[in-house]
Amino acid sequence: MLTPNDLARRAAGVLTRLRERRPRVHCITNAVAQSFTANMLLAAGAVPSMTMAPDEVGDFTARSDALLINLGTLDDLRRQAIDIAISTATEAGLPWLLDPVFVDRSRGRCRFAQGLLSRRPAAVRLNHAELSALAGSETGETDLLAFARCNGVVVGLTGEVDQVTDGGRHCRIHNGHALMARVTAMGCAGSALGAACLAVEEDAFIASVAGLLMLGISGEIAAERACGPGSFASAVLDVVYNLDCDLIVERARTTA
Amino acid sequence: MLTPNDLARRAAGVLTRLRERRPRVHCITNAVAQSFTANMLLAAGAVPSMTMAPDEVGDFTARSDALLINLGTLDDLRRQAIDIAISTATEAGLPWLLDPVFVDRSRGRCRFAQGLLSRRPAAVRLNHAELSALAGSETGETDLLAFARCNGVVVGLTGEVDQVTDGGRHCRIHNGHALMARVTAMGCAGSALGAACLAVEEDAFIASVAGLLMLGISGEIAAERACGPGSFASAVLDVVYNLDCDLIVERARTTA
Amino acid sequence: MLTPNDLARRAAGVLTRLRERRPRVHCITNAVAQSFTANMLLAAGAVPSMTMAPDEVGDFTARSDALLINLGTLDDLRRQAIDIAISTATEAGLPWLLDPVFVDRSRGRCRFAQGLLSRRPAAVRLNHAELSALAGSETGETDLLAFARCNGVVVGLTGEVDQVTDGGRHCRIHNGHALMARVTAMGCAGSALGAACLAVEEDAFIASVAGLLMLGISGEIAAERACGPGSFASAVLDVVYNLDCDLIVERARTTA
Repeated sequence: MLTPNDLARRAAGVLTRLRERRPRVHCITNAVAQSFTANMLLAAGAVPSMTMAPDEVGDFTARSDALLINLGTLDDLRRQAIDIAISTATEAGLPWLLDPVFVDRSRGRCRFAQGLLSRRPAAVRLNHAELSALAGSETGETDLLAFARCNGVVVGLTGEVDQVTDGGRHCRIHNGHALMARVTAMGCAGSALGAACLAVEEDAFIASVAGLLMLGISGEIAAERACGPGSFASAVLDVVYNLDCDLIVERARTTA
Repeated sequence: MLTPNDLARRAAGVLTRLRERRPRVHCITNAVAQSFTANMLLAAGAVPSMTMAPDEVGDFTARSDALLINLGTLDDLRRQAIDIAISTATEAGLPWLLDPVFVDRSRGRCRFAQGLLSRRPAAVRLNHAELSALAGSETGETDLLAFARCNGVVVGLTGEVDQVTDGGRHCRIHNGHALMARVTAMGCAGSALGAACLAVEEDAFIASVAGLLMLGISGEIAAERACGPGSFASAVLDVVYNLDCDLIVERARTTA
Repeated sequence: MLTPNDLARRAAGVLTRLRERRPRVHCITNAVAQSFTANMLLAAGAVPSMTMAPDEVGDFTARSDALLINLGTLDDLRRQAIDIAISTATEAGLPWLLDPVFVDRSRGRCRFAQGLLSRRPAAVRLNHAELSALAGSETGETDLLAFARCNGVVVGLTGEVDQVTDGGRHCRIHNGHALMARVTAMGCAGSALGAACLAVEEDAFIASVAGLLMLGISGEIAAERACGPGSFASAVLDVVYNLDCDLIVERARTTA
């Protein structure tokens, strides 16, 4: 079994490879999140692209190392792009991560997300309301494991405490800060980090833990020097950019 | 009649309720403004959503407490979404605010905005050029009152000095700073604050005054610590987040 | 022949006119870059607009002083808007600048960009991979001059060292900082500055040098006070806003 220290060291290794390999992450994400997501990926060492046109999204996906699918501000163009991008990723064996934003607010979006889940993302990142909607029920911790197992997917469930599970392994991450909920697209950018980690780490459980640890630790450090959500958003990018392996190992707080 | 001190106290009360109730504000706004608008709402305590797809925008609007309609980067998708969202808001009795961005630059957009005005927004927020275009003439202060009365709407007219009127009551707001004109979407974000205030204050005149006071006071304070428009944009969000009732009462500068 | 000092003085003159005339720059640009681009233009003293709807883009372009065409996140709406905007600009004699983002990643986009090049932009701003794709070959410095001459366009080629040529004159710009590559849309915003310069300087070679000098010098100064890419992005806007002619003349580093 992985000890907290093992997990932190594995996450640190993922960060090192991110910096060395600078993976390309193609992102189909919502209009509100595009700029912050691109900046988060650049800060971490990855290279983002964001086009959605049906005649281009296949080319861009095929030349990438991982794919992010985020359902915020979903529209017809995004639906088409998502379909093409996932098909391309599946053929090319690229890992992809699903962020089913706001599936609790629209039934149509929820059904669409359920369809995507059956196409086998490597990982999903969502909050409690979104998990309940997607699972079709109120969902506690036991159900989380069952949900991951049933869908053959690693789940990163974020909230006051984050949880990651592949249906077998499970861990809690206690890093993070309340200001993270006061910056738009912070969760979306965390999902993008997760996708970047998938590009350099085959074990999607480790990749998901690594992405959430990087963001949570960076959020904590950024909050120490921020005066509010505006300076916090800038500071998070600064900290992600300067994050090093020692800092991850030193500050990671995980429990089984 | 409301004294300046009464107005400031009413505005402070609106801020308190914003923080307590955390209203959901659905925003159909322009592509340039989406991220800053979402961050402004989060900083103030509200919860933004921004989807525009015709099959979802009704669901999102129905689950919100107020609606913002901003005409920047208007396109077919936005026109459709606006129509559905306003119909939903009208049925549900939700207040909505219109920001007719750049109606002075495009005749088609101006006609579209005039059509929206007839559907009874609770409030409009615009600048002098936009008001002239919308009213179909050069418009001074007397006309401002007539415009508000004719259209049965509260008007927030922003410029060096802001004015708010419902056709009967009228006030001038002398807060604000020149740097506000050097950050994109600052006016749009002010409109979003106004929409959030409508969610917690039935009197649209008071809500509009409250929104403009919050932004103007925050802009002044942020300018004291900013080195230019980049740091100013972050600082405004920090100040809005930390704004309290005493600060509003202390710094509000209104005249009849 | 222009000495480095002549070039710097000419660039300083462009900045002065930007501040005095406050030109309107209509931008058809990618979804990721819109907000940062608008903020860059406002910081420099220009006035941005960004609408793309086919029934409005002609009106907006006709009322502008220069046009920016950026091919990031290209889609059908953008293709239509680009066609209308360029036709309007050509009729009205407005200068326009092309930024062929990521033409190296998609063949369809590359062909589209080649078509636009034949419609005679005043200037193009791109990186080495994009130039190679657009020219249909690996391209070194000699080819750069030939490419500019063949296409009758001023080329701003950005990289560790920037180069500008109109096929006859040629200069290298050694300003800039590595953090510029860690902020999304920094290159796009540089192109927007170039378009703003074209609005106040008829010689597109001088305008392109001026735009790249302003951004490069601002990037250097911003890096001195930044802790990472988040604070750097804000600082660049602050520095552009505060940039003055003496600073340009003092810090410009160009070679033939």
